[in-house]
Amino acid sequence: MIIGKVVGTVICTRKNDNLIGSKFMIIEPLVKMGDEKSRIVAVDPVGAGNNDIVLVAQGSAARVGCGNQDSPVDACIVGIVDDPQKIVIMD
Amino acid sequence: MIIGKVVGTVICTRKNDNLIGSKFMIIEPLVKMGDEKSRIVAVDPVGAGNNDIVLVAQGSAARVGCGNQDSPVDACIVGIVDDPQKIVIMD
Amino acid sequence: MIIGKVVGTVICTRKNDNLIGSKFMIIEPLVKMGDEKSRIVAVDPVGAGNNDIVLVAQGSAARVGCGNQDSPVDACIVGIVDDPQKIVIMD
Amino acid sequence: MIIGKVVGTVICTRKNDNLIGSKFMIIEPLVKMGDEKSRIVAVDPVGAGNNDIVLVAQGSAARVGCGNQDSPVDACIVGIVDDPQKIVIMD
Amino acid sequence: MIIGKVVGTVICTRKNDNLIGSKFMIIEPLVKMGDEKSRIVAVDPVGAGNNDIVLVAQGSAARVGCGNQDSPVDACIVGIVDDPQKIVIMD
Repeated sequence: MIIGKVVGTVICTRKNDNLIGSKFMIIEPLVKMGDEKSRIVAVDPVGAGNNDIVLVAQGSAARVGCGNQDSPVDACIVGIVDDPQKIVIMD
Repeated sequence: MIIGKVVGTVICTRKNDNLIGSKFMIIEPLVKMGDEKSRIVAVDPVGAGNNDIVLVAQGSAARVGCGNQDSPVDACIVGIVDDPQKIVIMD
Repeated sequence: MIIGKVVGTVICTRKNDNLIGSKFMIIEPLVKMGDEKSRIVAVDPVGAGNNDIVLVAQGSAARVGCGNQDSPVDACIVGIVDDPQKIVIMD
Repeated sequence: MIIGKVVGTVICTRKNDNLIGSKFMIIEPLVKMGDEKSRIVAVDPVGAGNNDIVLVAQGSAARVGCGNQDSPVDACIVGIVDDPQKIVIMD
Repeated sequence: MIIGKVVGTVICTRKNDNLIGSKFMIIEPLVKMGDEKSRIVAVDPVGAGNNDIVLVAQGSAARVGCGNQDSPVDACIVGIVDDPQKIVIMD
């Protein structure tokens, strides 16, 4: 998984039927978890909001995360880091 | 998923039988979602056109998106952003 | 998928039993679909030849493409672009 | 797989139900197995601790590694290199 | 797949039960198949040795390659290029 920040949203009117009702959030990985070209779009079944720091699973795990194997998604928010202080890095 | 622009098409006469009838679109990721070497080819079951801004799922999700588990695809357009204004990035 | 050029071949005498009879082609992605470090090896069930421009599926789609779920492959040629003019990029 | 060092932890209060009880470790790949932007978060079913050098599997293998196909994870610690001397590189 | 050289080994005493008995080889991709940060660890069910040039499958194909769907691996040696002369690149 990667940790990233919710920096935006995107709305698609025309989309795959299994995406109806899904919220699409634009995620920017933390600076050590991706470069400035690594933003992705993830579905959000856990109710994250703008600027939240979130845990994102990618690949087939995304379908597991959104609870619908028929949903064509490759990235899903699976947790919210309520307080960035909960990310502890040792030096 | 990534958001990208449909910048071209490619036609293959000889191909896997399960790709007959599929449209192949060349996708260029938005500038923050890939570099200048990140173009991919995605199948298009949702009817996107040239210059459309689209949502693309990759990996095993692509087969889910095109509705055919026998189709050997690893990228699929799953939504169309009709109006790029629908992409909201916070500052 | 990516579009690439068949630039070589590789032969393995000792290999997984489910790869016996498979042809391994070395693929160089088109310049906008990978950098100079992005060559991959793909199996070729569609009969591509040297210098052909091909469509390559990666990941679990490769096993779908070669028609054998027991074949341990992660890249497969799924189409041949007989004429590079068939790749249309808009400006 | 990659070899990396456990450099931190992250705690998510709100998360997917199938992640309850999982420990999330921040992994920094060894210098030749990733760059300074390649940190990932992996679940830890084998009991690694801070500064441990670990073997991490990514993709669908992560769900196999944590023993729960319903767990939306894409990276999992699958082994601990108790002694870094056990990594032998030839010159 | 990628072609790489076996440049080392790693031993994990504590590991997932389904990895007991597996040999872990450190693979350095050929210069055009990865950069100096792209080393990976692959299991070796085909009996490769140090300095061997090997074909490596990644992702879910690795579990197919090692013949055990319960093995949490994401990279597997699936062939040995006994003679590097067997890699033919056209100019």
